[in-house]
Amino acid sequence: MVKQEIVVLRYGHRLVRDYRVTSHCCLVSRAFGARKIVIAGDEDEGIRKSVEDIAKRWGGSFKVEFTGNWRKSLAEFAKKGFFSVHLTMYGLPLQKEAKMLRSKKRVLLVIGSRKVEKEVYELSDANIAITGQPHSEIAALAVVMDWLQQGKELGKHFSKAKIRVVPQQRGKKTSKA
Amino acid sequence: MVKQEIVVLRYGHRLVRDYRVTSHCCLVSRAFGARKIVIAGDEDEGIRKSVEDIAKRWGGSFKVEFTGNWRKSLAEFAKKGFFSVHLTMYGLPLQKEAKMLRSKKRVLLVIGSRKVEKEVYELSDANIAITGQPHSEIAALAVVMDWLQQGKELGKHFSKAKIRVVPQQRGKKTSKA
Repeated sequence: MVKQEIVVLRYGHRLVRDYRVTSHCCLVSRAFGARKIVIAGDEDEGIRKSVEDIAKRWGGSFKVEFTGNWRKSLAEFAKKGFFSVHLTMYGLPLQKEAKMLRSKKRVLLVIGSRKVEKEVYELSDANIAITGQPHSEIAALAVVMDWLQQGKELGKHFSKAKIRVVPQQRGKKTSKA
Repeated sequence: MVKQEIVVLRYGHRLVRDYRVTSHCCLVSRAFGARKIVIAGDEDEGIRKSVEDIAKRWGGSFKVEFTGNWRKSLAEFAKKGFFSVHLTMYGLPLQKEAKMLRSKKRVLLVIGSRKVEKEVYELSDANIAITGQPHSEIAALAVVMDWLQQGKELGKHFSKAKIRVVPQQRGKKTSKA
């Protein structure tokens, strides 16, 4: 199996108000093995800095980018061969589409915030539901990445980490890497 | 396989500041099949109402409760036979512990917010990591529930729903149930 390249496109971000939820999206993207996240919304140096600081410390080469134009971003990723997957409770069930999704070499996962324009549904290559229930784009993102990589991402090695967890039954232990 | 009973204990909630993140925790708990969430923190009628309104509309019998004393809650769940699982990046890897976790009839998933007291690590029956990387309790919760139920929860039927999604390749469609 060729390793699939995953990038996340976050639709919508408002300064201050969305800070925590977008931060979670960024950290989940990194922890579950995406190469970068592109945020379509307010440019937010605070988020970029805090996430990239974590990435520096915990390893890997995750990047945070901003765009003022999600349509243009989507078109550019399409040109580069990315298959775009909009995560929405209204889409087709993940459990039925997982095999098809795993066959794509490059995947762009599109996650919304509150209101997503109709065009996102139309321009994405697929609309996929992680349960048909209202919940959380953060949860949807993690679960789809886990299904795409079939759990292998849970043990992912992050290169050039300055610190690593040493798993413990109780308590916290880290080592300098 | 006997159906496992899952309850979520959310450690820490501050009025206003944590509203969105705790809401996501509640909705994920419900969507992925937990029976209820117990929130140890500020009592927040707004969250309870909004989540239970969603539950009424989308079906099932999910409940939101509050406690001022997480130790007491944990002890009460233990008495009822719940195996408590604290989700933390410092714990043992989910992928190695999943089989053991699935064997428990009743599971209490404990999720923290920022700072979790040392005692949570000590009093929980297990400390489990969903990746050893910093990310999101919302993501950790969804992924562990997906692993416990091996994907079956994605197609869960919610009884007495007033509205259901009719999965679509593009666009949104719902039906009155």
